[in-house]
Amino acid sequence: MSQLDAVLAHIDENLDASLERLFAFLRIASISTDPAHRDECRRAAEYVRAELAGLGFRADVHPTPGHPVVLGAQDGASDTRVLFYGHYDVQPVDPLELWDSQPFEPRIETLPDGGKIIRARGAADDKGQILTFLEAVRAWKAVTGTLPVGVSVLIEGEEEVGSVNLPAFVDASLPKLRADVVLVCDTNQWDPETPAITTGLRGLVHDEIVVRTADRDLHSGLFGGAAQNAIHVLAGIIAALRDKEGRITIPGFYEGVPEVPEEVRAEWRQLGLDADTFLGPVGLSVPAGEKDRDVIEQIQSRPAFDINGIIGGYTGEGSKTVIPAEARAKITFRLVGDQNPVSVRDSFRAYVRELIPADASVTFGSGDGAPAVSVPLDSPWLAKAAKALADEWGKAPVTIGGGGSIPIIATLRSNLRAEPLLIGFGLDDDRIHSPNEKYALKSFHKGARSWARVLQELAK
Amino acid sequence: MSQLDAVLAHIDENLDASLERLFAFLRIASISTDPAHRDECRRAAEYVRAELAGLGFRADVHPTPGHPVVLGAQDGASDTRVLFYGHYDVQPVDPLELWDSQPFEPRIETLPDGGKIIRARGAADDKGQILTFLEAVRAWKAVTGTLPVGVSVLIEGEEEVGSVNLPAFVDASLPKLRADVVLVCDTNQWDPETPAITTGLRGLVHDEIVVRTADRDLHSGLFGGAAQNAIHVLAGIIAALRDKEGRITIPGFYEGVPEVPEEVRAEWRQLGLDADTFLGPVGLSVPAGEKDRDVIEQIQSRPAFDINGIIGGYTGEGSKTVIPAEARAKITFRLVGDQNPVSVRDSFRAYVRELIPADASVTFGSGDGAPAVSVPLDSPWLAKAAKALADEWGKAPVTIGGGGSIPIIATLRSNLRAEPLLIGFGLDDDRIHSPNEKYALKSFHKGARSWARVLQELAK
Repeated sequence: MSQLDAVLAHIDENLDASLERLFAFLRIASISTDPAHRDECRRAAEYVRAELAGLGFRADVHPTPGHPVVLGAQDGASDTRVLFYGHYDVQPVDPLELWDSQPFEPRIETLPDGGKIIRARGAADDKGQILTFLEAVRAWKAVTGTLPVGVSVLIEGEEEVGSVNLPAFVDASLPKLRADVVLVCDTNQWDPETPAITTGLRGLVHDEIVVRTADRDLHSGLFGGAAQNAIHVLAGIIAALRDKEGRITIPGFYEGVPEVPEEVRAEWRQLGLDADTFLGPVGLSVPAGEKDRDVIEQIQSRPAFDINGIIGGYTGEGSKTVIPAEARAKITFRLVGDQNPVSVRDSFRAYVRELIPADASVTFGSGDGAPAVSVPLDSPWLAKAAKALADEWGKAPVTIGGGGSIPIIATLRSNLRAEPLLIGFGLDDDRIHSPNEKYALKSFHKGARSWARVLQELAK
Repeated sequence: MSQLDAVLAHIDENLDASLERLFAFLRIASISTDPAHRDECRRAAEYVRAELAGLGFRADVHPTPGHPVVLGAQDGASDTRVLFYGHYDVQPVDPLELWDSQPFEPRIETLPDGGKIIRARGAADDKGQILTFLEAVRAWKAVTGTLPVGVSVLIEGEEEVGSVNLPAFVDASLPKLRADVVLVCDTNQWDPETPAITTGLRGLVHDEIVVRTADRDLHSGLFGGAAQNAIHVLAGIIAALRDKEGRITIPGFYEGVPEVPEEVRAEWRQLGLDADTFLGPVGLSVPAGEKDRDVIEQIQSRPAFDINGIIGGYTGEGSKTVIPAEARAKITFRLVGDQNPVSVRDSFRAYVRELIPADASVTFGSGDGAPAVSVPLDSPWLAKAAKALADEWGKAPVTIGGGGSIPIIATLRSNLRAEPLLIGFGLDDDRIHSPNEKYALKSFHKGARSWARVLQELAK
């Protein structure tokens, strides 16, 4: 039996123990956006540190102005060094009533098709994915006493809120983070049978629009027809930000958006990802973005604008005849190519200010953001990882453009001059950020096996 | 001293006791729209019944499928009979943090200009106004042992939620409600020194728009650009319901909207109610309605459309990169002239359905409504009331078009064939429906004196 076979067998034989460790991690309600869960975030960081220490890492919890960062490191059998990045924080769970089980009481369920899944908030995003890597490390250490490559592990607690404090930590910790390649496990497979390497990630800008009109809420009987209504103003702005063709109307917004080469588009078309296959499983059928783009372009190579939340006026039971004096919306832009997050934010705000009518004013939120990231397709690290994945899954991984944003990747890449390698085992129907989040047991198991193979390949 | 002078003197001398009774009424948190306040609504009805009984009325609390109705009656010295209508229910108090005192702990405050006010939810709308009438009744009974006219009193508990159960009660109780004139005290004076009789009330339709898109909330990174966003759809609908000129775009919406005769418009212009005087006190300056209409037309003789509340997606602290699958807005239309509430509702819904794009669906709320009401300017009852008010205030009352809606007036008018007479002592800055609602002590005191005079004049 080769060393690698022994490592893989160790993963297979210890799957139940791996799951127990994952469940303990999932029971921690580390919702980073909610100040009420601050202590839980701290507990999640401590949990990661203790796991790393148990695996032989020199590991510490580092405070930040927000939630702490965990950093661990150990040398390996070769000079190659990887930095693994992940996040212990999770999305909020509301609306809680739409969950079929308690979000922080993980359990194994068997689906009608016989597949087993792990059900919990964070199962796929990102605790389950983090543990695929750590369980691969555990198996290598258990079987051989060492690792094929040197490994540093950086696990943050603010990915779901824009990683606001991580860049400063990275800047201050560069010597400890040095690596040849940055491994990230926070993306998806192509489908349940096919692995994927993500070679492009959209960037992100998030902001809030707060519209104010009168100095108080007004009676709509007395003032209706004469007084500016904050919700009307906000709705008008939102509607004006896109035209009938689905294009975003902010002047200069598309600067830096590259056209995808025709051969790549042709390749994408071959993948058979159309509106039915992509949107059908969530109850939709018609791509809602730019009308002259395929659905695969809309989610991979085109920028997007979404309203994530809106509130204003009376939202309780029954009715209230009020003209609201304030309304607010949370928004995000997804960026591609060379779109600059600061320029996009500034152009957006200038355009909104232009749209504001008399008797209304506007303020904004944080406007934080990160640029898009792309990985060169001819990277030697990519080739090694692709071989490892093909060995595990019996078919070559698909290289996909990705759609989500992982704000810190651009920072790590430019500061460390290390290439990112994004390999994840999520599935499109994992309901991350939604009620009933899940992670396939097969993803968890074969994910750990995949990383065991990748670690060996990268040492070659 | 004439009988009337003795009645007025009794009101003056017993003002403190009148206020104590008002405060006890104001302490009852009878918020009709909130099911959690059901018992408080019941307590408010009981309070009114007990007061009526103490004043010599045969009075009962009548259950309805919603909040109960209170009905009392007693004969007077003349054959003339009036029905006084008011409502014991109040608006919600949120946002509570904007109140400078507890909304259900009434108190007297002295304003910087020396004027005294009663501060509480319901002080002006409508508990304080109801008690101006009951305190006038009390004084007449105390001084003369009887009333100049027969009086029935109908106090409901669902005015703020569209009086949904009152029409059926009125239909079933017509013999008990018989009257020559329906008195209502739920409107405003012209200004602090000038009384007013309201001769027009806009009608009302309220409804809710609920937009649904995907079968769950989606991750905006994975789906952004391809998946329909429920808030986007809702904002687009709201924006499309009015054009750039401020006109409502629903086909057929303006059917039944009369043009105000030029001589009436000229009279209105003489009143000096312009954008500065009307909107300035609430921090606004530019009329937001139809651009070719004066502000006084916008609020008195033109229909209006308002969004009263909106909610969708993530509205908590921080950010959440979600594409919401549901968004909802509460809306009201104010109607004038012969606009039919059912036709307006149906046209509105048909138009919204037309606007709904692919991958979105819409449902609606109750769609309840009431038509506008107008009182003939040559009514003899109006002339008698005007004389009484002129005697009290030292100047003739202004007849105003009104703006708010009192849903039951149209029903009472058509079923009883009795003319409505709307005399109120509210002021434009009373903040009804808003935090820090107040009622001028002078309005309360002179309101009671005004009703004492009106009761006598109506008997002549």
